[in-house]
Amino acid sequence: MLSRIDHVGIACRNLDATTAFYEATFGLTVVSRETNSEQGVREAMLVVGEAPGAASYVQLLEPLGPDTPVGRFLERRGEGIHHVGYTVRDITAAMAAIAAAGVRLVDSRPRHGSMGASIAFLHPGDVGGVLTELVQPSVPA
Amino acid sequence: MLSRIDHVGIACRNLDATTAFYEATFGLTVVSRETNSEQGVREAMLVVGEAPGAASYVQLLEPLGPDTPVGRFLERRGEGIHHVGYTVRDITAAMAAIAAAGVRLVDSRPRHGSMGASIAFLHPGDVGGVLTELVQPSVPA
Repeated sequence: MLSRIDHVGIACRNLDATTAFYEATFGLTVVSRETNSEQGVREAMLVVGEAPGAASYVQLLEPLGPDTPVGRFLERRGEGIHHVGYTVRDITAAMAAIAAAGVRLVDSRPRHGSMGASIAFLHPGDVGGVLTELVQPSVPA
Repeated sequence: MLSRIDHVGIACRNLDATTAFYEATFGLTVVSRETNSEQGVREAMLVVGEAPGAASYVQLLEPLGPDTPVGRFLERRGEGIHHVGYTVRDITAAMAAIAAAGVRLVDSRPRHGSMGASIAFLHPGDVGGVLTELVQPSVPA
């Protein structure tokens, strides 16, 4: 069902500074910057590795305000890893299978994620404290 | 420098139950179980995806006792994502480059990680709150 680790989502207070740090320290390259007002974040996607069609990303997230999911995370826990996203081929089928296994879905239907992907979050309370995201990329891997 | 996301390390209280959950819910397969007394954990590695020579893993970690790094993490934050590990081709060179960029290394020299890998942790205080691990697999990718 899960075809790879799509990304690790990292909450930060200053997106530009954190992006520059990842570029300078680890040699990563930004492939997308966008603002997702629905999720209340400004974000950058940095690609890890060079496998064609099978990239993974570091997703850096800065909240648009304190009263957003990432803003509340920063207030509660400070900067750090916020969630993990896994690539799936068919998000609707994956959501149905996971719900059937007894895991609550935060999103009852797919919504818009980074770089045109369709995404859905699973309830961390049902996944051992891990905020887990399913990602169906806009271009199939 | 980073050739892929090697694994996401997840702290849990009950390794067997959490492993069974990931197998049943996400269809992942355990490829290694080991106890690392140096790090104070019992762990399972579950492979994500099928790319030959380029696998990523979910690493489930149960502490061997409360006075271990993962035991203290569970006490402080509860179950959840503990760290992220990136694959590198040459861990000694990567450690030197990262230290030269001003990031403190938790490990001054590589130590033994999962499945025969050489690993080193970077100080989360210098990586935006993210406990970051470098992984040179025993078999080069």
